[in-house]
Order: sequence, then C-alpha cells, then structure tokens
Amino acid sequence: MSTIDSTLITIILGSKSDQPVADKVTAVLHDFQVNYSIHVASAHRTPELVMKIVLDSTASVFITIAGLSAALPGVVAAHTIRPVIGVPISGKINLDSILSIIQMPPGIPVAAVGLDNGSNAALLAIAILAISNKDLAKKLENYRKKARAKIIEANNDMN
Amino acid sequence: MSTIDSTLITIILGSKSDQPVADKVTAVLHDFQVNYSIHVASAHRTPELVMKIVLDSTASVFITIAGLSAALPGVVAAHTIRPVIGVPISGKINLDSILSIIQMPPGIPVAAVGLDNGSNAALLAIAILAISNKDLAKKLENYRKKARAKIIEANNDMN
Amino acid sequence: MSTIDSTLITIILGSKSDQPVADKVTAVLHDFQVNYSIHVASAHRTPELVMKIVLDSTASVFITIAGLSAALPGVVAAHTIRPVIGVPISGKINLDSILSIIQMPPGIPVAAVGLDNGSNAALLAIAILAISNKDLAKKLENYRKKARAKIIEANNDMN
Amino acid sequence: MSTIDSTLITIILGSKSDQPVADKVTAVLHDFQVNYSIHVASAHRTPELVMKIVLDSTASVFITIAGLSAALPGVVAAHTIRPVIGVPISGKINLDSILSIIQMPPGIPVAAVGLDNGSNAALLAIAILAISNKDLAKKLENYRKKARAKIIEANNDMN
Amino acid sequence: MSTIDSTLITIILGSKSDQPVADKVTAVLHDFQVNYSIHVASAHRTPELVMKIVLDSTASVFITIAGLSAALPGVVAAHTIRPVIGVPISGKINLDSILSIIQMPPGIPVAAVGLDNGSNAALLAIAILAISNKDLAKKLENYRKKARAKIIEANNDMN
Amino acid sequence: MSTIDSTLITIILGSKSDQPVADKVTAVLHDFQVNYSIHVASAHRTPELVMKIVLDSTASVFITIAGLSAALPGVVAAHTIRPVIGVPISGKINLDSILSIIQMPPGIPVAAVGLDNGSNAALLAIAILAISNKDLAKKLENYRKKARAKIIEANNDMN
Amino acid sequence: MSTIDSTLITIILGSKSDQPVADKVTAVLHDFQVNYSIHVASAHRTPELVMKIVLDSTASVFITIAGLSAALPGVVAAHTIRPVIGVPISGKINLDSILSIIQMPPGIPVAAVGLDNGSNAALLAIAILAISNKDLAKKLENYRKKARAKIIEANNDMN
Amino acid sequence: MSTIDSTLITIILGSKSDQPVADKVTAVLHDFQVNYSIHVASAHRTPELVMKIVLDSTASVFITIAGLSAALPGVVAAHTIRPVIGVPISGKINLDSILSIIQMPPGIPVAAVGLDNGSNAALLAIAILAISNKDLAKKLENYRKKARAKIIEANNDMN
Repeated sequence: MSTIDSTLITIILGSKSDQPVADKVTAVLHDFQVNYSIHVASAHRTPELVMKIVLDSTASVFITIAGLSAALPGVVAAHTIRPVIGVPISGKINLDSILSIIQMPPGIPVAAVGLDNGSNAALLAIAILAISNKDLAKKLENYRKKARAKIIEANNDMN
Repeated sequence: MSTIDSTLITIILGSKSDQPVADKVTAVLHDFQVNYSIHVASAHRTPELVMKIVLDSTASVFITIAGLSAALPGVVAAHTIRPVIGVPISGKINLDSILSIIQMPPGIPVAAVGLDNGSNAALLAIAILAISNKDLAKKLENYRKKARAKIIEANNDMN
Repeated sequence: MSTIDSTLITIILGSKSDQPVADKVTAVLHDFQVNYSIHVASAHRTPELVMKIVLDSTASVFITIAGLSAALPGVVAAHTIRPVIGVPISGKINLDSILSIIQMPPGIPVAAVGLDNGSNAALLAIAILAISNKDLAKKLENYRKKARAKIIEANNDMN
Repeated sequence: MSTIDSTLITIILGSKSDQPVADKVTAVLHDFQVNYSIHVASAHRTPELVMKIVLDSTASVFITIAGLSAALPGVVAAHTIRPVIGVPISGKINLDSILSIIQMPPGIPVAAVGLDNGSNAALLAIAILAISNKDLAKKLENYRKKARAKIIEANNDMN
Repeated sequence: MSTIDSTLITIILGSKSDQPVADKVTAVLHDFQVNYSIHVASAHRTPELVMKIVLDSTASVFITIAGLSAALPGVVAAHTIRPVIGVPISGKINLDSILSIIQMPPGIPVAAVGLDNGSNAALLAIAILAISNKDLAKKLENYRKKARAKIIEANNDMN
Repeated sequence: MSTIDSTLITIILGSKSDQPVADKVTAVLHDFQVNYSIHVASAHRTPELVMKIVLDSTASVFITIAGLSAALPGVVAAHTIRPVIGVPISGKINLDSILSIIQMPPGIPVAAVGLDNGSNAALLAIAILAISNKDLAKKLENYRKKARAKIIEANNDMN
Repeated sequence: MSTIDSTLITIILGSKSDQPVADKVTAVLHDFQVNYSIHVASAHRTPELVMKIVLDSTASVFITIAGLSAALPGVVAAHTIRPVIGVPISGKINLDSILSIIQMPPGIPVAAVGLDNGSNAALLAIAILAISNKDLAKKLENYRKKARAKIIEANNDMN
Repeated sequence: MSTIDSTLITIILGSKSDQPVADKVTAVLHDFQVNYSIHVASAHRTPELVMKIVLDSTASVFITIAGLSAALPGVVAAHTIRPVIGVPISGKINLDSILSIIQMPPGIPVAAVGLDNGSNAALLAIAILAISNKDLAKKLENYRKKARAKIIEANNDMN
C-alpha cells in the first residue's frame, strides 16, 4: 500500500465473536487502501490491554465493536481525545448495545453507527480522515458514485 | 459505632447529580450502623480516579450508581473481584442505564438492582455482609420484621 | 471435593426448561470446586416447595433462574435474608424476565445478572463467598487471570 | 346493601401507594352494590399475610393491584383456584408491571387489565359474577347503556 | 361428555393461522371435559360474523385469540357483558398484540393472558366457571395437584 | 364556504378527551375551507354508533383519533372501503396506540400518522382529495410554500 | 389492461432487498388491473434519483418501501403533494423503520401501514383511487366480499 | 478569533424548537473559539434549503439536530462526503429520533451522539478537527483536564 503508509485506524473488538462485523470494517478499509491495526480487548476483562492499545496507537481514529453492555467505545474514548466510533453488535435484545454506545455522558463523545454496521464505521472513519487527505476524499467520492451507479442500474433493470 | 469499625462498603456515584439515590443508600447504612466511604468518580471522565478508589478501598462490597450509558459498575467490577452492586439511574429513556448495568459480558458480573433503588442496593450489600456477620444478620431480620409490621398495620387500618 | 465441604450455594430453576442456563452455573461452580444443591421449583405452581427449599437450605447464597414473569427470585428473597441472585431467561420478549427480576420493590433486593448469563450468576455468588474465603478469592483471581490471558492471546493471534 | 350480602370480591393492594387505583375499583363496586373486602399485603415483604388473606377469603374473585416487578397477582393465583385479576400500576417504566402480570407461566393464569385501569378490573369481576347472578347482569347491562348514552349525548353535542 | 352438556365456552380465532394456540386451549378443555364451540372470525374483515357469533353464543365465557393489532377481544367485549379472555399471538413485534389486548379503555374490560398462552386462557375460563360449578372446581384442584406433583418429581429427580 | 360544499371528511374521536388533537385537524381543514363532520364514538363502548356514522357518512375520507388499544381506526375501516386515517393519541405508554393503529391485518388498511399529529392527518386527507380537486391541490401547494417560507425566514433570522 | 390505462401508482423500493414486500404490493395491483411503475432508489445513496422519479411520475399515489432508518417515504413526501404511503420493512429491531415512517413532523404527512404489509399498502392506494373511480370501488367491494367469504368458509369448516 | 478563522463547523437545526440543544453545541464551540455557521432547515419541509446549505458550506464537519422521524442527519450525509454528526432530540417517544439517526443504511454513515447531547456533538466535531489541528488538540486536552479536576474536587468535597 504505497499511497497511505502509516496506521490511520485502530480497530478494537470487544470479543472474538465480533469478527464478522470487523470483517465488514476491514473490507472497506482494504478497498480504500487505508492501513489499520486490529485488536481484541475487553473493557471489562482486560481494561489494561484496552488502555495499552489506545496509548500505543498512533492512529487518527478508533473503531470499536461491542455487544451487550457495550462499554468498550466509552472506555476507549475515556483514554484518548481522538475520535472514537462505536459499532453496536446485535444479540437477543439489540437495544442494550445501541443504548450503551449512544447514551454517553456529556464530556466524552462516541460516534455511534448502526447495529452491526461495520461498513458505515469504516466509511465514517474515512470521511473523518478525508477532511485533510485529498486522495481519500477522491476515493470516497468514487465509492459513492459506484454505489449510486449500482442503484441506478438496479432501477433500470426493473423497467 | 462500636460494633462495626472498618469501612465495609464503598459507594461510588458516577455524577454529583446521582446524590438523591446515594442518599437512599446511606440512609439505610446509617440505620444499620455500617461504615462506608462515598465518592464521585466518572468511568468515562476520570477512569484513573475510579481505579484508584477501587484499589485503595478495603471495603468488602461496592455500590455503584450511574445513569445513561452506565459503564461505572462494569468498570469497577473490572478492577476488583469483590462484589459490585449497580444502581441504574432514571432519565429520559431508563432502559439505557438498566440494560448497560445488567447486560455484562460473561466473566465480570455486576449485581443489578432496580431503577433508582438505592435502598435495595444497601440492603443487598448488608445481606452479603450478613453471611459472616451475625450482628448484621440480626439487624436485617429486625428490619424485615419492622417492614412487615408496617404493612400489617396498614392492612389493619383498612378494615 | 475436599477443600470446601458444605453446600455453599442453592440453585433453584423455575422450570426444567431452564436447565441449559443452570448448566452454565454449575460448570463454573465445578471449576471452583464449590458445593451446591440444585432444585426445580416454581414460584407459581409450587410456592410451598420453594419455601421449603429456602428454609431447608443452609447455603450462603441462592441462585434463582426464571423466565417470563420471573417471580421466583423475588419469592425466594421474600423468605430469606441471605443474598439472592436472579438470572432472567430469554424467550419471545426478554424484557419480561429482565424487568420482573430487576424491578423489585424497596425492602427485598434481588441481585440481577444478564439474560441467560448463568456463568456470571455463579461468579457473583463466588465473589460474595470470597469475601470471607481466601481460597475462593485466590481461585477467582486465577480465573480472571486466565480469562485475561485468553483475550491477550487472541489479541496476539490477530497481529 | 340488602341485595348482595356476602363478600364477593377481595381486593389486595401491593402497597399503600396503589390506593388511587384501588379507589377506581371500589367506586365501581359501590355503584353495583357489590360487597368487597380490601387489604394491603406485599408479595415480597409479607408473603404470609398474602397467603392468609387468600386462604381466609370466601370471595369469588380477587382483584390484585401492583407496580414494578408486580408479583402479587401471580402469588395470589398460586394460592387459590378462584379467578385473579391483576392491575398493573404505572411508574417510570410501565412495561415492568404490565409484563410481570401478563406473562404468567402455563398453569397459573392471571387476568390482566390495562395500566392503572381499576374500573375495568371491577367491571371484569362483576362480569364474572354476573354469569350466575341475574341481578348483577341486569346492572351491568344498565351500566353499559348509561356509558353508551353518555357518548351518544357527547356526540350529539358536537353537531 | 355426560357431566357438562351445554357449550360453556366460545372460542374465536382472529385468523386460521392462530390454530396452534387454539389447540392449546382445546387440549385443556378436553382434559376438563368442558364443551366449547370454536370459530374463525376477523374483527376487521368480518365484523358482522364476529357479532353474529357473539349474539348466537349461549356460552358463559369467551376466549379470543388474535395477533398484530389484536382488535378481536375488544370487539367481542363490546357486544357482550359476559367475560372475554384475550390471548395475544406472537409475531415480529409481540408488544403489538399484547398492548392492543391489555390497554382497553375504561368500561369494556378484557382479561388478557400471556403471549401465545392458550392453556392459561382455558384455565382462566375454567376458574371462572368453577365459581358456581363444584365439579370443575374439584377438577381444577386436581389439575393443580398434578402440575405440582410433576414439578416435585422433577425436583426429586435432580437430587 | 362557497368553493367546496359537501362534507368531504368525517372525523371520529374515540373519546371526548381526544378533542385537543381533533382541534389540530379542524384548524387545518378550516384553513383549506374543507367541509367536515365531527363525531365522538367509541369502537368499544358504542360500536353501533361507529357503524351508523360510517354508513351515514357521504365523506370521501375518514379521520379517526384514538388512544390506548386504539381499535377505532380499524373498526371504521372494517365498515367502509373509503380511506381511513388513524391518529394515535399519546398516554402513559404511546407504543400502545401507535402499534394498535399501524399493525392492521392484511386486507383492511389504515393510514397511520404520527402520535398526536392531527395536522398531518388533515393534510393527508387533503392530499387524497386533491388528486381529483385542482382547487385543493393549489391550496396545498400554497400551504407548503408558506411553511417553506417560514423556515427560510427563520433560517435568515439566525445569520 | 383496457379499463385503466395510465400509471396510477408509483412504487419505490429503498433497496433491492425489499423486493419480497414489493411483490405483495404488485400482486394486489395485478388483481385490480391497476397500472403502476416500479423503481429502486435510495433516499440516502441516490437522493437525486428519488427526486427525479417523483417529479417524472404522473401517478396519483406513491407507495414507498424502506427498512432501518426509513427516510424514503418522508423524502418522497417532501417532493410532492400527492399522497405517499410508507411500508416499514422488518429487520433486527423493527421499531426503527416503523417509527422513522410514522413519526413525520407536522406539515409533511406519510400514510404508514404495518410492518412488511405490502398488500395493505396496495389496498390503501386503491381505496384512495377508488374515491373518484367507480370501477375500482366496485372491485374493492368484491375483494372485501371474497376475503369475507373465505373467512366464513374457514369458520364453517371448523364446525 | 485569530487562531481559527474560517467556518469549521456547520450546524443545522431541523426545527426552531431544537434551539436549546443547539445552544449546548454553540456554548462548547465558543469555549474552543471554533467558528461555525448555524442554520434552520427541515429535511421534509425545505429539502432544497438543506441541500443548498450543505453545498454552500465550506465547513469540515456538520452537526445536525432533529427530533421525531429525524431524517435531517441522513439527508445531509446524502449530499456530502464530509462527516455528519446527528443529535437526536427528546420528545414523547425518544426511541424514534435515536433509531432514525443511528440506523442508517450501509454506504451513508451518520455519527450519532446521545439524546439531546449537544455538548458531545460539539466535542466530537472538535475531536475530528483536532486530528490535524494541534491548537484544538491542546484545548481539548485542557477541557478534559478541567472536567476531570471538577470531578476530583467534587469527590474531595464528599470526604
């Protein structure tokens, strides 16, 4: 990956079982040739590991993935001023992870995206990076164009 | 308080605005003459303070009080093997704090009590202490008897 | 089981169909070599049996498992001052058992854990016992260490 | 009350604070000149009192009123084969008392009516009694007619 | 069925797809040898048929079964002063049928039972009939005893 | 009102207490000089009156307003093939009236609008009438333009 | 299709994955021989396409189908004064699409039908068209009669 | 404001009634001396104005504030590749605006923050800008320190 060398995004999964949603994140990042590091660390079972990953990271943006009482995004946000994106994972209740991630107290924001929506987490991270990265901005415009073209084509196929 | 000298319970509020529920906790503890320490520390804004309070504490049981995305009980539980009781605080949604506290991942339990139910948090802590403290057990039996008598009296007043 | 002889924990299932969650409880208790007794008794269909089990039990902690309108934890708590842990069972609604167990009236606390979270119920019971049992406290520290090591290993495997 | 002498309905409040909804019950029963007894007894704080009231009662129908984790209707139903009506009381969540009362396990039914809907609890009890009581059936027909007339009048007033 | 000749219960399904829950109702009624009639009629698609069934019925109690916006129980109750039991049917939301059935306006009560809980609807109807039918009361006592014995046996099997 | 003579819209309130939301409906209809008739009739307490109003009405569209288990819109729709708009009324739960109105079974549609949103019910009725009424279509365009202008003005005031 | 020539209804799917619900819409429209056009266009990914479809359409009624944060119905309604029907699509939460479609702000109404209820969307559109189309009105009466007959037959089959 | 000259953030309110939450946003931006523009524009009532504001804006980040069926954040995101933050506004349901904002379809992300949480929206925007703005990063570190100090002081005051 010649265009973008350093690790721009640090991904943290709260549990290995969150891998399928992480795969949606990394699929988009590969498309955009954005370097990332990926980790498993539980806010509740390994708080020190979470802290170490955050402090060691030189990434610009964090993507955190967690289900149930999803404390991970908030705990990561507590240890950095860099933007933290939170992806709630579906389960038997769904409102648990959504509300745990979105209802942060004033002072420590988390950017919540939709349930299991790993691709949107990646695209939001890229949109953030694209503010000061023209190459990524161009790629993002192209990505949108392709998505648009695909729907227009699907629409044409219907008639 | 001669019978019970050391601090048996450490109370942590996630925010000063949780004081009214903390008052319900301490009212019960005063009744039972149980020593406690009380602190304000936010899992998101002051994670180090939370950790310091937990590690410094020699209490047997923690009572944690938090609203919104109530990470505090889980974060305290992450730093100790002692039992942690979590009290969800009411707000505009209510299910946010309840689900954040009760839906802990396997491995790090929190003992959740009802919304704003500070007195039950105190009584649960006392029940836990009473396992190996006959004086507290006796007081708890008496407390129950009085509550029972009050209802029986209310019932008699109706007829 | 030489180290811990007497029955420390009494487990009550509200229905035979709750067995899979009870198995998660007993798996942890076996790991910790903690003696327990296990029963099936419905708060609604066999209230006398529930009461008999509670009054006969010499255990220090109760673990109760129930779904739907999960009255069992509260009914057990009504008959003892010992700590009662409640595990809500999943079904078609999920909020029914969670709210039935967590929303106890002031005076009779139940320690609610997460939906179907039998292992956390066991670990909470052990944490309560560990206050005055150094052997269990050491085992609990080890259990946590192993869980931590497993995540750290999983994390290492990712990179 | 000459027409109906014996106590036909036993009302039990889970807490003194449920009185306003109990007043809606008794207002209807007075209208219909139906004798009732009224009690306060908590399923969690005074289970023996609940059982005593149920076993002592010679009423044909029970009306039970409770909020939060509303175990009272189910606990009454556990001690009698007579029909038990449950009225959920509103609070900060509302779904707690509704689901606790309606989601009874197979075998022990409770007849749930709407949130705070004391008058419907009374009317349902009267409908049950009216099956074998022609006087009450006639009164119920009249009550319905009056309610109908009131709406028809309100409708006429609009045009 | 010699002991109880006339039709005591009229069952109405809102849709043919509710048959599995109706089967739970009739299984219990067969056990108790209670005569019933059974119908399919939609409150929305065939309101006249619903009304005809209600007015033609000489049963003492109605059991109505409906999903989604479950208007059937309330519409039946609007046409009779006899007790109407409503069984909410599960689907993609579940709260829709539960709330539609339980939240009746003051004046026209419905006795709501749990989601898909056909057996409790039947048992509630029998409890209502048993007020003035000693044979059914005895059978209901026996039914409860058997249910109790089954749990006690299951409990014995565990130890 | 010279331009539009006959009654185009029939409004039915499920209860007199729904008047404030009905006032939002009629305020819009007055603005558009659309003739309407307005009635109070309960689907549960006066089903015959509801049917009579529907069968007597020569209006093109029905607007129905109801709270709790809001059966009125569906019951009106059951008696006519003309479009029926349903307005859910807010209360202690809110999801009850919304789900009762929106979750109609296949075959009998109701057009649900937002909670307490009387003005949108009126505007939807006008949009339906405007399909074949150029005068109303022009008025509706103007109404939208004014709403737009008001926001543009508010926006200009901010800067 | 000789009786009704021009396109009366424009259907827009927010995503190709909504096709199964669109099929329920078109099945009813085929039954009624109502001409329609059908399109795929995302309010979020192709807002210009949505606008173009709306402005190009000469249909009298729009049927829009969308899941998740279902903005499509509201965005269509923002570009036309013609009636817009919204069909929420089921997913992991269900309340997301229902609330997104029904809770429109005052001024821009959407006619919401039930979750996945494509046939009701079609029937509501036909009811709207039938106001000024006697042929469709007759067909709709017949459709209802057939639905009624089918239930009456099912009812007869039970007895 | 010498350090940061150009407009970095564009704030859009869906309605003038959202002003109190917008005030929380601007209070934080004033603290950080970050230039912003502020607008009122409804996604449903003035879609062209929304598009014009987005296309005219040279800001790096958008903050959008909306209640009910909160389409505004998604509609803004549809017209730009720059990051869009969405603030759900509280009302009678609360889950409506939260789910409308968070449940975006794959391809067009919105960064959702908590209910009415204007200050977190501002802090998230600043965190995003701070990636490539050392001055803002320093200010954000200071802001956090002050918040931390305030809690530590509150904690000291308790003991």
